[in-house]
Amino acid sequence: MKQEIAFIQSEELKVKPKADSLGFGKYYSDYMFVMDYHSEKGWYEPRITPYEQLILDPAAMVFHYGQAIFEGLKAYKTADGTIQLFRPEKNMKRFNESCDRLCIPQIDENFLLKAIKELILIEKDWIPEGDGTSLYIRPFIFATEPYLGVRPSHQYKLLVILSPVGAYYGDQLSPVKIYVEEQYVRAVIGGVGHVKTAGNYAASMKAQEVAEAKGFAQILWLDAKENKYVEEVGSMNIFFKIKGEVVTPKLNGSILSGVTRDSVIQLLKHWNIPVREEKISIEEVFAAHERGDLEEVFGSGTAAVISPVGELNWNDRSIEINHQKIGQLSQRVYDEITGIQLGKKEDPFNWIIKVAQV
Amino acid sequence: MKQEIAFIQSEELKVKPKADSLGFGKYYSDYMFVMDYHSEKGWYEPRITPYEQLILDPAAMVFHYGQAIFEGLKAYKTADGTIQLFRPEKNMKRFNESCDRLCIPQIDENFLLKAIKELILIEKDWIPEGDGTSLYIRPFIFATEPYLGVRPSHQYKLLVILSPVGAYYGDQLSPVKIYVEEQYVRAVIGGVGHVKTAGNYAASMKAQEVAEAKGFAQILWLDAKENKYVEEVGSMNIFFKIKGEVVTPKLNGSILSGVTRDSVIQLLKHWNIPVREEKISIEEVFAAHERGDLEEVFGSGTAAVISPVGELNWNDRSIEINHQKIGQLSQRVYDEITGIQLGKKEDPFNWIIKVAQV
Ligand SMILES: Cc1ncc(COP(=O)(O)O)c(C=O)c1O
Ligand SMILES: Cc1ncc(COP(=O)(O)O)c(C=O)c1O
Repeated sequence: MKQEIAFIQSEELKVKPKADSLGFGKYYSDYMFVMDYHSEKGWYEPRITPYEQLILDPAAMVFHYGQAIFEGLKAYKTADGTIQLFRPEKNMKRFNESCDRLCIPQIDENFLLKAIKELILIEKDWIPEGDGTSLYIRPFIFATEPYLGVRPSHQYKLLVILSPVGAYYGDQLSPVKIYVEEQYVRAVIGGVGHVKTAGNYAASMKAQEVAEAKGFAQILWLDAKENKYVEEVGSMNIFFKIKGEVVTPKLNGSILSGVTRDSVIQLLKHWNIPVREEKISIEEVFAAHERGDLEEVFGSGTAAVISPVGELNWNDRSIEINHQKIGQLSQRVYDEITGIQLGKKEDPFNWIIKVAQV
Repeated sequence: MKQEIAFIQSEELKVKPKADSLGFGKYYSDYMFVMDYHSEKGWYEPRITPYEQLILDPAAMVFHYGQAIFEGLKAYKTADGTIQLFRPEKNMKRFNESCDRLCIPQIDENFLLKAIKELILIEKDWIPEGDGTSLYIRPFIFATEPYLGVRPSHQYKLLVILSPVGAYYGDQLSPVKIYVEEQYVRAVIGGVGHVKTAGNYAASMKAQEVAEAKGFAQILWLDAKENKYVEEVGSMNIFFKIKGEVVTPKLNGSILSGVTRDSVIQLLKHWNIPVREEKISIEEVFAAHERGDLEEVFGSGTAAVISPVGELNWNDRSIEINHQKIGQLSQRVYDEITGIQLGKKEDPFNWIIKVAQV
């Protein structure tokens, strides 16, 4: 795409929230990126505009037939003021994979990344600098055509909004209690679980609510066919360290291919720690614990980076992992990835894309 | 709910489309019903307003996490000018079942039905009178709270919009060609396939696109666990007439419980035609055809009422049903249901709710 990105100046800027009150996804910056699609024109009118309300027809297809996809990545500010992104090209690629599965027209990945960089440069003062904070970037696309027949929409809107965020699970890397879900399922092979579409998250809320009422922070999903094999957690992939070896469920078509997951695997290989992607049953996990071999369990995702699991509850059986303390490897992986993201550690994999020096 | 429904008059009314150009879901009437929800207030401000554009925050949760559900029913005008609805209480009940599964607050079914009746009375001139036409009623709810964390929204909007429609599949009850899908799936037990949530339809479009490119009108979905048992068609349930007996897949948690499906079953029982709800494999269907026992296949749904199937294609095998002609029973069921809906036939089941005499 060779188009120029128009810029519409805001008349008034917001007061920025304090770094210690950020939470996740509550505040939005002053500007957003917008681009529209019409089947006769392709993607058109890319523009950076003030963050503003959208105007939509009540028959807009997103409300009825749910064509909606999104991505999530972060911009970080290093100690010397460099703004950097972590593997954003992976998010652009996955965005297009989501487009493909949901019959949404493809986007130009390079162009969108360029637009995101421009937006971030304008909004550079919105990148918070406290520990564990960052500027969350949310690109999303949804169907806008007013039409009630079931078929792919002919019109879409793509937006990128920015939200300054604190650490997802609060300040501390503290182990969470996880409930292994047996009744509800998140996704099945042949469905849409491997892409980031809105409906996946709506479908997951019921189980999450039930688990929270029982005192658990998150759900561990099992496969939908046999209710047997571990898939992933809420919005994280999952890793088990068993007798010095690390195992994570193999991507099978119903698991989201996390950018953090891929980074963890690469890091472990780099460190010569054995890591395998394979089918792993929840029974095996519990058996490993019984044998005293289950050393660590942790989730991986953009929001929390690494989230240690302190307890797993399956079928009324509860197991405690590493005495509810953060495992050594979980901590090492967390320190390494956040270190690279914040420019405190070397980046041997060229994961970092610098946006600008401010 | 004891609330009064406010009415906001439109300054200008639209020109109504011609009865022969209606199609499905292209035109919307002058008014709509709207009601908002906030966790601290419950449902509030029920109102009938001009059909108008909605204003939403870019972070509104529907765009990101897909809490969106809907219903579909129709208003009919009889020869003597009576306006009537077909089993609307079933749609209200299913609406609440969808709410429950998607963590959306329950609605007052009686109140919503009353609101729909008020809206239809105001819009009575929008009910078309041509053969096979009706006023399609689309109640829907979606999440409006601006927030990027994954959890149920605290704010929602409920709307009812009206669309004058022609017959869904064109003028004639003509048999369609159906493709039995083996790769993609629509829903799985433990998921959300048994309710009317937006994401189900988004997930179904890819397979539909592939099938259309191969020359088929619709998809027949198989179960997601074994890819073996028949579930339903695009937006219809499915019936097979095999050697004088009618079989339809049993509701199992992944199939939508169609109002038309239930009506067909009741009618068949009333006529003393054997009908069974049970698991039926696609292999059995093809075997019945081989034996010369597969007499009719038809879909059932609000939009098309009854849609005869003329051809089924599974795994590169194609079978022709009833020489691609409408079966006697399909026609009889269609005539009976549409007859009741249009007040031409008796209504032994009390399916009809009269809205008013005009
Ligand atoms: C369902 C799901 N699984 C896993 C992840 C982790 O992916 P990533 O590491 O790319 O953030 C996410 C979050 O993005 C997710 O939504
Ligand atoms: C997936 C699906 N199955 C079946 C049906 C048929 O249901 P009903 O007869 O209530 O219209 C519909 C349409 O409403 C549907 O969307």
